Amino acid sequence: MTSRTTTSPRPSARLKLIEAAHILVRRRGYAATSVDEICAGAGVSKGAFFHHFASKEALAAAAAQAWTAHAEQFIFTLPDWTRIKDPLERLLAHIDFRAAMMDGPAEAYTCYVGTMVQESFASSEILRQAGDASITAYAERLAEDIDAAIALYGIKDGVTGISLAYHLQAVLQGAFILAKAKADPAIARDSAAHLKNYVVMLFDRKEA
Amino acid sequence: MTSRTTTSPRPSARLKLIEAAHILVRRRGYAATSVDEICAGAGVSKGAFFHHFASKEALAAAAAQAWTAHAEQFIFTLPDWTRIKDPLERLLAHIDFRAAMMDGPAEAYTCYVGTMVQESFASSEILRQAGDASITAYAERLAEDIDAAIALYGIKDGVTGISLAYHLQAVLQGAFILAKAKADPAIARDSAAHLKNYVVMLFDRKEA
Repeated sequence: MTSRTTTSPRPSARLKLIEAAHILVRRRGYAATSVDEICAGAGVSKGAFFHHFASKEALAAAAAQAWTAHAEQFIFTLPDWTRIKDPLERLLAHIDFRAAMMDGPAEAYTCYVGTMVQESFASSEILRQAGDASITAYAERLAEDIDAAIALYGIKDGVTGISLAYHLQAVLQGAFILAKAKADPAIARDSAAHLKNYVVMLFDRKEA
Repeated sequence: MTSRTTTSPRPSARLKLIEAAHILVRRRGYAATSVDEICAGAGVSKGAFFHHFASKEALAAAAAQAWTAHAEQFIFTLPDWTRIKDPLERLLAHIDFRAAMMDGPAEAYTCYVGTMVQESFASSEILRQAGDASITAYAERLAEDIDAAIALYGIKDGVTGISLAYHLQAVLQGAFILAKAKADPAIARDSAAHLKNYVVMLFDRKEA
């Protein structure tokens, strides 16, 4: 994010390139997306690209970091969600929210980071680590709420917040693949419903 | 599989190319893998490649079909698994088996079809459909057992066999992505354990 506070002649080019990477990689994958296509998608010159990024790999890693910030802004601090005081209700609302996002074309609701890691984990240690950092940040953020719910209600089978948070990530990532294969997000929403069902059974509140 | 019953001068070249595609696509993704690399991996000439396949896309679609046959041979008809008479025990053994497979380098245990569909769903309708066919075949095969378990034990919340079978697929596909990001299959086995936990709770056998 340094470009936005420096004297760069095009303060928004970096952000435009990252947003183009988010869209194009989710639509066509990382390897199939060229620097030229990203520049065209961003409406930015190739010179501007290399002013901000040394390579496609460097942009992709920065885009993973931006994806984490995006999740913080559009998921974790969403007023509809944060105003729910009960941490278990907030967790269930989180799953509902993620399921409600599963609509329209797959590139609009699937995960930039999951798509990037799927194909680049063995080819680029930089991208694997950038993907891990983003997935870990999401899981650790979510685990705070799950741990608060566990403290309040208890949980079956000694499940931990971080373990359940990663499992939530796994279900969503896999649900995206099924939705892509079927060209229909309904199958992904169905897996999200199973996940919610599992969480409800794990907590088994007598108050509910 | 026609090449194995025709008078092809190299009866095993087709199979070698499919096996090379399974390995290379799981390691590096579909777009990043070239026909030259597949030929080198298979130890087959480019001439032989184009004798069997019109394009990389045609090979990839055939490899998805072969992947389904592979699952039938190495998963669904495995003696350790089919000799279990109780369908719910067989389902739980299936999950255990899939978790036990999650070991070593990710390209050895992850899913060719899931990786292929992840990046090609919007670029190739042929590959999206080939991926859907393979995922659907797996889910429908597994749903037979789940439906038998439901008939025997009942299930909570009106869950259907096919819905739970697709959810199992989603969990595995997503677990693979987490394992790739962390360069460690332990996180994938942890999601498989959550899946097993969910199945046990859904059935809630009093006999167990």
